Amino acid sequence: MNINLDNIRRPTLLVDEAICKANIHWMAERAKKLGVKFRPHFKTHQSGLIGEWFREEGVRAITVASVSMARYFIEKGWEDITIAFPLNLRESDELIELSGKADLNILVTMSEPLESFGQKFYGIKRPVGVFVKIDTGYHRTGLTVSDNEEIEIIINTCRKHSLLTFKGFLTHTGHTYNARGKDEIEMISRAAFNLLKSLKVKFDSGPGDLILSVGDTPACSLIDSFAGLDEMRPGNFVFYDVMQTVIGSCDTSRIAVCLACPVVSKEQSRKEVAIYGGAVHLSKESVFYQGKTIFGLVCRLSPQGWSEPLDDCYISAVSQEHGVIKVSNSVFETFKPGDLLGILPVHSCLTAQCMGNYMINGELAEPQM
Amino acid sequence: MNINLDNIRRPTLLVDEAICKANIHWMAERAKKLGVKFRPHFKTHQSGLIGEWFREEGVRAITVASVSMARYFIEKGWEDITIAFPLNLRESDELIELSGKADLNILVTMSEPLESFGQKFYGIKRPVGVFVKIDTGYHRTGLTVSDNEEIEIIINTCRKHSLLTFKGFLTHTGHTYNARGKDEIEMISRAAFNLLKSLKVKFDSGPGDLILSVGDTPACSLIDSFAGLDEMRPGNFVFYDVMQTVIGSCDTSRIAVCLACPVVSKEQSRKEVAIYGGAVHLSKESVFYQGKTIFGLVCRLSPQGWSEPLDDCYISAVSQEHGVIKVSNSVFETFKPGDLLGILPVHSCLTAQCMGNYMINGELAEPQM
Repeated sequence: MNINLDNIRRPTLLVDEAICKANIHWMAERAKKLGVKFRPHFKTHQSGLIGEWFREEGVRAITVASVSMARYFIEKGWEDITIAFPLNLRESDELIELSGKADLNILVTMSEPLESFGQKFYGIKRPVGVFVKIDTGYHRTGLTVSDNEEIEIIINTCRKHSLLTFKGFLTHTGHTYNARGKDEIEMISRAAFNLLKSLKVKFDSGPGDLILSVGDTPACSLIDSFAGLDEMRPGNFVFYDVMQTVIGSCDTSRIAVCLACPVVSKEQSRKEVAIYGGAVHLSKESVFYQGKTIFGLVCRLSPQGWSEPLDDCYISAVSQEHGVIKVSNSVFETFKPGDLLGILPVHSCLTAQCMGNYMINGELAEPQM
Repeated sequence: MNINLDNIRRPTLLVDEAICKANIHWMAERAKKLGVKFRPHFKTHQSGLIGEWFREEGVRAITVASVSMARYFIEKGWEDITIAFPLNLRESDELIELSGKADLNILVTMSEPLESFGQKFYGIKRPVGVFVKIDTGYHRTGLTVSDNEEIEIIINTCRKHSLLTFKGFLTHTGHTYNARGKDEIEMISRAAFNLLKSLKVKFDSGPGDLILSVGDTPACSLIDSFAGLDEMRPGNFVFYDVMQTVIGSCDTSRIAVCLACPVVSKEQSRKEVAIYGGAVHLSKESVFYQGKTIFGLVCRLSPQGWSEPLDDCYISAVSQEHGVIKVSNSVFETFKPGDLLGILPVHSCLTAQCMGNYMINGELAEPQM
């Protein structure tokens, strides 16, 4: 990195290109070694430029979280996109339009909206792939592996509408975010993977091309066998964050984003430093870290980048534009108003979304979608 | 209101103009009755259009949370602005530029940055007002009323730099957000107001024009005497939200914003409805409500607006784009994928910031700053 810190006047989200590219390369290689297709989720970075860093690693197929995000990446030249969010019937017209511009896969959790969509589905040029969302324990959305009847109806709905192609089963094992360490993640993931694999046995009556797709950064970072699975869709790993270090997916040296924040006030008696940088920049995401609820860790900044997080320093509270940092006695004396410090975010997906653009190598990148 | 619900395809933040204007009128009248100047905080709505609704009530002086927000409202024709955020030395050049375009007040919590700013302060056309931020119990930033020496240094710094005018003392009694009901808010506010008033006795050696400024929506909504105070700066009341109903500042009929969200999935066994509408739309703010941690309340939508919140229905979890709603058995059957429902946000300031624009009377307004 090479940042002119004097140019930073307000909270600014720095991306370390070298760390970020290393994360992308590492995960792309891992997918190759594990023998699964790499279809990274782009909801974390939401950036055309960072998308190009994936293309340099040979990535051609991606995952997004919304129809709007599909549109954005189609405009950036991506042609193979899974929208990993339950079919929103109110966006049927947009989906039909976009299906003419890229190979799209959609996600369904119930047969009823797919049937409604199928009936509307005239005049498109390319088939749309359909994944059935399976709930393997996260309990957000999705059918369970024992919902045979509903799964059959969905598969039959695809058969009925010639432009809907049943592709397979997709799960998001988001409950790994409650795990701590590889053993717990392994236990959760194994159970989820086995549930998913049972569906292949039941429903792959065809030429064996039914796809089983999994994706969460903890599992994709740590699990050593994806035998029987076909595709991984991790997203957060592109930046990682403090939450992932708490889960055990990575160490802090692999976090690729840091929010540069001006120091605006100090409170001697409480050993607190107030920064320009709050909930509208970091989000209100918190995590339990070394016995405390924190909203970010604190680093020193230099033109070359950021330091490892400082011991015993953390954001203890955020309001709209403020953050309050608890610092150790020795660190307290080293910051004064007008200085900059760096914050490693708890949840990089939300921080990136709040900020809307990145500073990469000292230059502001084109805003995200 | 008159909304064509068919036009809503994605999460959309509805503003009820009638409720919002009634909130503004009510607070403006209240300030008059209480005998204090009304300097509303514009950080909640951040909208040029809604600013005009304040102007119709005779408001000419406003509060903002950042230098960027000051610039936005100066461009909208506002000429008397308090930036209620500790002086950020990294924005000194912007402050100097803006000081030529409006009457600005800045906020200081320490003498040192004010002295640095004073030394830079050449070539400007109008004096800049200086408020000293007093911590009356919230413990975020500010001097205490016993920090006489530091307050004296700040006042003397203003005397030394002819274009810095000491204006008075400002506090934000944000700890009322931990209160429940008028009695608790009254107790906290009285104590804070008395601390602030003690400063007038100590430091108003001049013509009696030292200003005492207070501002938080709970106190400004509920306290019946502001005797001895000069100015109120509430912001959130323009929309109110679920948090304010929990605190006791208002009832749900006065909430002026509602997030319209498409239903995308249903889970029979858990009686849950999944919506397109998550942390990137609502923020991750939660509140403890009727024994549960919730991220929003649920309403029915019609072209005329939204209903009162449905009993026993609430957002139990949000992820990036999803919200999961727990609904009662009877309500579960009444929503299907493709329907819209309304969410009353827990914290309207953050939801407004996340969304970036409003739908007012069925039309998307000009995006906020």
